[in-house]
Amino acid sequence: MSDDVPDLAFDETDRLPAIAQDADSGEVLMLAYVTPEAVERTRETGRAHYYSRSREELWEKGATSGHVQHVREIRVDCDGDTLLYLVDQEGGACHTGYESCFYRTIDGEVVGEQVFDPEAVYDE
Amino acid sequence: MSDDVPDLAFDETDRLPAIAQDADSGEVLMLAYVTPEAVERTRETGRAHYYSRSREELWEKGATSGHVQHVREIRVDCDGDTLLYLVDQEGGACHTGYESCFYRTIDGEVVGEQVFDPEAVYDE
Repeated sequence: MSDDVPDLAFDETDRLPAIAQDADSGEVLMLAYVTPEAVERTRETGRAHYYSRSREELWEKGATSGHVQHVREIRVDCDGDTLLYLVDQEGGACHTGYESCFYRTIDGEVVGEQVFDPEAVYDE
Repeated sequence: MSDDVPDLAFDETDRLPAIAQDADSGEVLMLAYVTPEAVERTRETGRAHYYSRSREELWEKGATSGHVQHVREIRVDCDGDTLLYLVDQEGGACHTGYESCFYRTIDGEVVGEQVFDPEAVYDE
């Protein structure tokens, strides 16, 4: 390919933020962090992988809930320090049951749509 | 208002990432970082403010270029550690002249639209 492949500017902890956006509706679903390994696994499998900062481990979105993200395209920003995953989301992206993690305004008004019951998905 | 106002979970450096999304087209335009002061100034003025990590200062998007972002709504994610600005973007969001900073795929294919000439905007 003749295009220049963008350099990725991971930070000093080898991470950068990745935004997941629904490829069809354009809804911004979530933001999480990725390591080089998470990006590699995402490209290999076609399913979104992230790095959990609290659990300190590679994490496949939906591995527990079944709410995987099929990645259609990965974009890089101008500085190479943020990724954008364009995805087909199974179920909902948010562990609260909402389609998007951004289901509230800064004033607390709920503007998102709840698409599953989190107790039914995670409580077993 | 009866809704619970979400707590914002700024990190140890008092920052968190904010995604700017075009309120009409749904295009993800950029990601930058905000401090409590940047959020406050954004709410007061209705124009997107961020914190420049390289210049270490509060920054109004478009103050130099004129490419300001009129903020229609601010959303908060489930953990309170990321914001989503829904904006009307004047000109283009990216300093390269593209409408969005995410104008390339991870393989370097240019998929975005150039909407202004950066030399005409910044070279004076």
